[in-house]
Amino acid sequence: MEKFEVNILGCGSALPTVKHGLSAQVVNFRDKLFMLDCGEGTQLQFRAAKLNFNKLNRIFITHLHGDHCFGLPGLVCTLGMLGRTADLPVHAPLDAEKVFAPLLDYFFREMPFKVVFMPFDTRKNELLYEDRSLRVSSIPLKHRVPSAGFLFEEKENQRHIIREMTDFYHVPVSKMKDIKAGEDFVTEDGKIIPNERLTSPATPSRKYAYCTDTAYYEKIIPIIEGADLLYHEATFMENDLKRAKETLHSSARQAAMIAEKAKVKKLIIGHFSARYPNESLLLDEASEIFKNTVLANEKMVVTI
Amino acid sequence: MEKFEVNILGCGSALPTVKHGLSAQVVNFRDKLFMLDCGEGTQLQFRAAKLNFNKLNRIFITHLHGDHCFGLPGLVCTLGMLGRTADLPVHAPLDAEKVFAPLLDYFFREMPFKVVFMPFDTRKNELLYEDRSLRVSSIPLKHRVPSAGFLFEEKENQRHIIREMTDFYHVPVSKMKDIKAGEDFVTEDGKIIPNERLTSPATPSRKYAYCTDTAYYEKIIPIIEGADLLYHEATFMENDLKRAKETLHSSARQAAMIAEKAKVKKLIIGHFSARYPNESLLLDEASEIFKNTVLANEKMVVTI
Repeated sequence: MEKFEVNILGCGSALPTVKHGLSAQVVNFRDKLFMLDCGEGTQLQFRAAKLNFNKLNRIFITHLHGDHCFGLPGLVCTLGMLGRTADLPVHAPLDAEKVFAPLLDYFFREMPFKVVFMPFDTRKNELLYEDRSLRVSSIPLKHRVPSAGFLFEEKENQRHIIREMTDFYHVPVSKMKDIKAGEDFVTEDGKIIPNERLTSPATPSRKYAYCTDTAYYEKIIPIIEGADLLYHEATFMENDLKRAKETLHSSARQAAMIAEKAKVKKLIIGHFSARYPNESLLLDEASEIFKNTVLANEKMVVTI
Repeated sequence: MEKFEVNILGCGSALPTVKHGLSAQVVNFRDKLFMLDCGEGTQLQFRAAKLNFNKLNRIFITHLHGDHCFGLPGLVCTLGMLGRTADLPVHAPLDAEKVFAPLLDYFFREMPFKVVFMPFDTRKNELLYEDRSLRVSSIPLKHRVPSAGFLFEEKENQRHIIREMTDFYHVPVSKMKDIKAGEDFVTEDGKIIPNERLTSPATPSRKYAYCTDTAYYEKIIPIIEGADLLYHEATFMENDLKRAKETLHSSARQAAMIAEKAKVKKLIIGHFSARYPNESLLLDEASEIFKNTVLANEKMVVTI
């Protein structure tokens, strides 16, 4: 299968610790790298993860809290020193350009590329990026400031040719593309060979949903339904639910309830509050509701 | 002796590596903490060094290149979350407020303290801070943008009372302060007891000079003369002197020449270019000129 993996660079919450970096991930989809959030220190984690700066395609920022975006100026600076020339799209909530552009303008007067802010409406499930094989859209979340997650969807895959059958029916090479797309084949003497006889079903297309920071928010369920992997914040434990509600964050139990109701295949919880020295308690809490849960960790690479 | 130590938090140059953090140090003088530069990730290094955020008195920024100041917003944010209420003075070149204030205003609308930018003229040796026992002044440097180092000078220490002698001459407690300050003592019957008979010499006052980023610049020599410790940048080796000159940085050999000419007691070199996997070559080069040289390293704590 084509590469589709998630590199976790940071999974701590606002107050940094020695244990966890600030929010950042890199989705590697067919060797294009997509960054999700960019907390302070992300460029160092990126390097430690041995990811290739030249392959960074674009950045998506969930919301404008410092722990999700203060790594941006340093990363941009490093990309410039490494000789990047391609513009860098940064999909972020509306104010990002207003806030970061003066800083970038001051420090990068002679940059060989532009940072292009692409504002989006965090209240909508909106298509943000599309290429031949991938779609990325926003997932409206519920937080103290406008916040949205991101859904990575592999486009529908093609059916697999059964070589013995296409040979048997003398299907010409010129027709293979249509056959893979699901069309039937018509032989020279007009006989229709149903596609199912010539191909086996396509590999199911894969989905990854990144949801942080957010309170428990059931409206995301239809958008992320059936995802192969869901990263959902679990800043607090259920016994700190009062604090979670005040700050519009989720508990581990709530993250698991979303995973359960959206029938995803696997859940990673992260954005851990520094108050819990033993995160296995968060895992226990989530696993009671949704069994296939793991704790996020720096240097974790999850293949989808 | 009263505490006077330097904690090195980062000693890499602009391009961050897995080996070195970006420029930052903390001077601990009698348990007041003074930060010198604040590159991205400094707050994490601060925590790793087990320094106390509550004791951070003020910050000094040498120049406005990202690797020396991009850690500022994140650090300020963390101090707010930890409940700081005292204003935070940031001594920095003129443009710092213009560049950082819009960002701080946006992200810290409800901060319980203020960041007070205190611009200074990087071309002068100017007193920036003074308390009962310490003076901090700027050291004009030569770089691509306005840049200044910082000189920490312990104020003149008091002479040590020789208890047996003050008892013998019945020196009253009320006179002790003057005696420590060097005054002679006049007995009730008008006899003058010279101070040297009552006291032994004061402990010599100590000096630390922090000089980065800069080209080789002899004008700093009279300012830093006789310092107990000099941190001087040594971005390049002598065989990359052309590059050093273009970028207005120093070679290890040049750092040592400054140390030698200024008759300092000890030299730490840092701000290493990522191009040298083996920094001991930089050390060899400097040590040839100035023997008491060491390589900076994260987590290094040097007592002065």
